[in-house]
Amino acid sequence: MLQELPTLSPAQYSLVYNMFSFTVATMAAAFVFFVLAQKNLAPKYRISMMVSALVVFIAGYHYFRIFNSWEGAYALNQSMGAYEPTGEPFNDAYRYVDWLLTVPLLTVELVLVMDLPKGESGWMAFKLGFAAALMIALGYPGEISGDASFFGTRGLWGFLSTLPFLYLLYVLFTELGDTIQKQSSEVATLLGNARLLLLFTWGFYPLVYMVPMAFSGYPTETPGTIAAIQVGYTIADVLAKAGYGVLIYNIARQKSIEEGFDVGEYSEPVTASA
Amino acid sequence: MLQELPTLSPAQYSLVYNMFSFTVATMAAAFVFFVLAQKNLAPKYRISMMVSALVVFIAGYHYFRIFNSWEGAYALNQSMGAYEPTGEPFNDAYRYVDWLLTVPLLTVELVLVMDLPKGESGWMAFKLGFAAALMIALGYPGEISGDASFFGTRGLWGFLSTLPFLYLLYVLFTELGDTIQKQSSEVATLLGNARLLLLFTWGFYPLVYMVPMAFSGYPTETPGTIAAIQVGYTIADVLAKAGYGVLIYNIARQKSIEEGFDVGEYSEPVTASA
Repeated sequence: MLQELPTLSPAQYSLVYNMFSFTVATMAAAFVFFVLAQKNLAPKYRISMMVSALVVFIAGYHYFRIFNSWEGAYALNQSMGAYEPTGEPFNDAYRYVDWLLTVPLLTVELVLVMDLPKGESGWMAFKLGFAAALMIALGYPGEISGDASFFGTRGLWGFLSTLPFLYLLYVLFTELGDTIQKQSSEVATLLGNARLLLLFTWGFYPLVYMVPMAFSGYPTETPGTIAAIQVGYTIADVLAKAGYGVLIYNIARQKSIEEGFDVGEYSEPVTASA
Repeated sequence: MLQELPTLSPAQYSLVYNMFSFTVATMAAAFVFFVLAQKNLAPKYRISMMVSALVVFIAGYHYFRIFNSWEGAYALNQSMGAYEPTGEPFNDAYRYVDWLLTVPLLTVELVLVMDLPKGESGWMAFKLGFAAALMIALGYPGEISGDASFFGTRGLWGFLSTLPFLYLLYVLFTELGDTIQKQSSEVATLLGNARLLLLFTWGFYPLVYMVPMAFSGYPTETPGTIAAIQVGYTIADVLAKAGYGVLIYNIARQKSIEEGFDVGEYSEPVTASA
């Protein structure tokens, strides 16, 4: 489907532009943090920070591409005082490519930080990661299809994509739920928060997916809708990737403390004893 | 041969475009992982991760070039709603340059992680690496030749290129096969998987090579064929380089554990003993 981009006011164009730049900066800063913060954690939790670092690295790359695509898709019309589409398409599909890589890794992060009994981690990470990748891949044909109707191509692939999503929720809230109960109360609370953040932010994406179906009678997206969707996506991505990674860091840190590892914070002052 | 590029639908053009971008992101993220993950391994296995990092670094560079070449080879024709060739050639030969460097390195990775008896590694790496480079170099004249017939230039060089490929398979499944049997059962399984991944992904390339021969009666590639070939190449490259590197990491990690190196995972809790 060739997206028909609407003319935007300078405020609308700049809001999206600045949010994309904000997200590039956030992902890059999160990458630096996750790489450097590894050494504060007990060795067995460092791998979860490494996966967090990969997620924001990949997302940062894609937001850089999205930013450039946005810049190319619009040009300021001086006399109108508005941003008009240049005819170059805005490639929103970078998001799918990003999710195909990052969403499975986000589930892997959660499994790694839980430190399941030996032998269970691999299978759990595979189940969740595969379902996550399938969810994204099944959404793509509907997203690029020209047929946006509820009972047409978009609706069909959207429905198929929902099946692995429901499976993910099932595993997160039943199988992993039991494991969460076995952790200390601090860790259980933090893990519960991380799971809720996933649910809350992932829930945003299907809503946006349904927008063209809900407005399928209308040929183009309105300026307000496109700005709101793009800003919504950036907020969801920042929370689901950088924010989520910080939650994972806190879980790893708490577990490191409980296991007697000196995390190097809030420690007693070093006494100058001989 | 100057490739005659077909006109593509937006969905076909974008699928290839997005897969190229996906591969750039994957290779870059894999590079970060292989560099950072080295410290989790016993020192003698770190060199295999370094070679893995080089492979995905080189592949990331070439996919960046391929991405740009694809972008330059097509332009959106607004009135047709389709992507038409601009006349700038799409330089698929970047792939050969990439393989000439990376395919020998992939065989070297396998030899390094196997940790053969002192003195055997060098010779084994040389044999496999040289055969791999020869296989790529012999395929190139056929690829760029205008004569795509089975008993013509393409067929001849394709046949010559198959000889070192068969030699590689022979060494991988006989000489190295004996060595694999001597490893622990976990390591032997992982090594067997890595070897199968090489066989499976490398087997894809000759199939694509034969496509123009099979369709030699037709003057141009069809839109569906070119999209399928490019997407197939990216999947094969991601699996054979990034995915294979992760397998090599798992082998190195397992061998590090068996040799008593603390890989920092699944370890006993640090006791706060004085």
